[in-house]
Amino acid sequence: MLYVVGLGLSDETDITVKGLEAVKNSERIYLEAYTSILTVGKEKLEDYYGKPVVIADREMVESESDVILENADKVDVSFLVVGDPYGVTNTFVSSRATTHTDLVIRARELGIPVQVIHNASIMNAVGACGLQLYNFGQTISIVFFTETWRPDSFYDRIKENKDLGLHTLCLLDIKVKEQSIENMARGRKIYEPPRYMTINQAVEQLLEIEENRSEGVCGSNRLAIGCARIGTQTQQIVAGTLSELEHVDFGGPLHSLVLIGNRMHEMEAQFIRDYAINPDTFDAIVKDHYHA
Amino acid sequence: MLYVVGLGLSDETDITVKGLEAVKNSERIYLEAYTSILTVGKEKLEDYYGKPVVIADREMVESESDVILENADKVDVSFLVVGDPYGVTNTFVSSRATTHTDLVIRARELGIPVQVIHNASIMNAVGACGLQLYNFGQTISIVFFTETWRPDSFYDRIKENKDLGLHTLCLLDIKVKEQSIENMARGRKIYEPPRYMTINQAVEQLLEIEENRSEGVCGSNRLAIGCARIGTQTQQIVAGTLSELEHVDFGGPLHSLVLIGNRMHEMEAQFIRDYAINPDTFDAIVKDHYHA
Repeated sequence: MLYVVGLGLSDETDITVKGLEAVKNSERIYLEAYTSILTVGKEKLEDYYGKPVVIADREMVESESDVILENADKVDVSFLVVGDPYGVTNTFVSSRATTHTDLVIRARELGIPVQVIHNASIMNAVGACGLQLYNFGQTISIVFFTETWRPDSFYDRIKENKDLGLHTLCLLDIKVKEQSIENMARGRKIYEPPRYMTINQAVEQLLEIEENRSEGVCGSNRLAIGCARIGTQTQQIVAGTLSELEHVDFGGPLHSLVLIGNRMHEMEAQFIRDYAINPDTFDAIVKDHYHA
Repeated sequence: MLYVVGLGLSDETDITVKGLEAVKNSERIYLEAYTSILTVGKEKLEDYYGKPVVIADREMVESESDVILENADKVDVSFLVVGDPYGVTNTFVSSRATTHTDLVIRARELGIPVQVIHNASIMNAVGACGLQLYNFGQTISIVFFTETWRPDSFYDRIKENKDLGLHTLCLLDIKVKEQSIENMARGRKIYEPPRYMTINQAVEQLLEIEENRSEGVCGSNRLAIGCARIGTQTQQIVAGTLSELEHVDFGGPLHSLVLIGNRMHEMEAQFIRDYAINPDTFDAIVKDHYHA
């Protein structure tokens, strides 16, 4: 059996009892470690499970899935995923969903039974910010700008949500085990330190895109909620305009950002007001631009 | 401390290790039992926790929250919620989100610390059907029609999603501990047996609304995916047109329904094809109406 086990959002104890049992019965355990992170590392998980854990990087999951699946028709193998296996977390969502789905499809082809053990994902846990989940439109991902690549297609998605008055959950990029262009060109397997996009960086990029596109989608006065380390003990939630949030220190990863749509209910506004950097600004903007 | 603990989607072992620890340390345990269900009942949970569990119905949560919160500044109290505390599940979403948020707000007012322990929700677990979560628009709820009340405002939400090519997750109504009008009028506390909307009923209602509104939002040829008991051992996923799904037997609760938007990727279509009642019809409709 291949178990695809969600680990939840915080530490080793966020696994479900069912998930832990599957892991303990598995002959091999892989940890997908390039689309999200827990607050604890591989060693802590190994202690907790009493078993070795193999880090599965993107290369391994994408090109060596048969190594992961080897023998899984006879013994149990666990593939661990931070958050929920089918959820998206703070990274480039399509590749995450794709590689996990690919693994399941490959297992199916090989006649290996698969059991998915679900867990929390940022996509439901973000409800902690006070916005109601059924008022969210499509989720988007913001990737790190480089000198030459400054993608902004998600701007159109945010606009679609905004035109309907819906909130947008923005998941922020993660770069793990990336090579510099130079090292890649020279075939050197030297990797850059991991990078996690901060709310500040995301806001900066959004404001830059707004300046270029000027369609009034994410200007400096738009209300948003910065959500750091949701589901962990040090969770931090701050509401304010984008320009206010650009300079708030949210501490360590993972960060995500919610752009508030103007269908916001009065009850949502009331709950979120407690998180506002500046409750007066918040009230004034809500009064002028929101239905609440 | 008030612990608000998500129980996940299936049975008693879907609680997280962290959640189970909180429950075991709690002096009182309440189970919110009117917006969703597990595959196991209160007795099984009591056996598993080794403690009594009090069923909290809507009335209790809404009007007697201070009973739940009593003393919670000194002792630990757990409030258990099927799925994720902030997720929405197969019921009238706004009331679920509202009452849980109200409880947290009330605890805050009383100076009681609150810890939310997240878990899987249908909103992320629905990814099991093969559609990618970032292609979903807003989630809607379909409530039971009565003779005199046939609400269809969600039709506009589905249309908004459809116009953008996005998928719509439809959560289906649950009626637990409802009184008949006669019993209510006579003040008799006699309750009707619980009712869980089936995919067949949801489709029937959607087709009726489409007939009245005729805006081409959910006609008999629209592709959809019926999802029954997602996250459980008996999970059942069937794709087809609405008229095909109207007569599929999906077995026991809980059911939900996904309307497929026409931004569906080729990869999504490929995965879902395996669930199609009639792969040829499915392919033909995808070819004509979807971008895949």
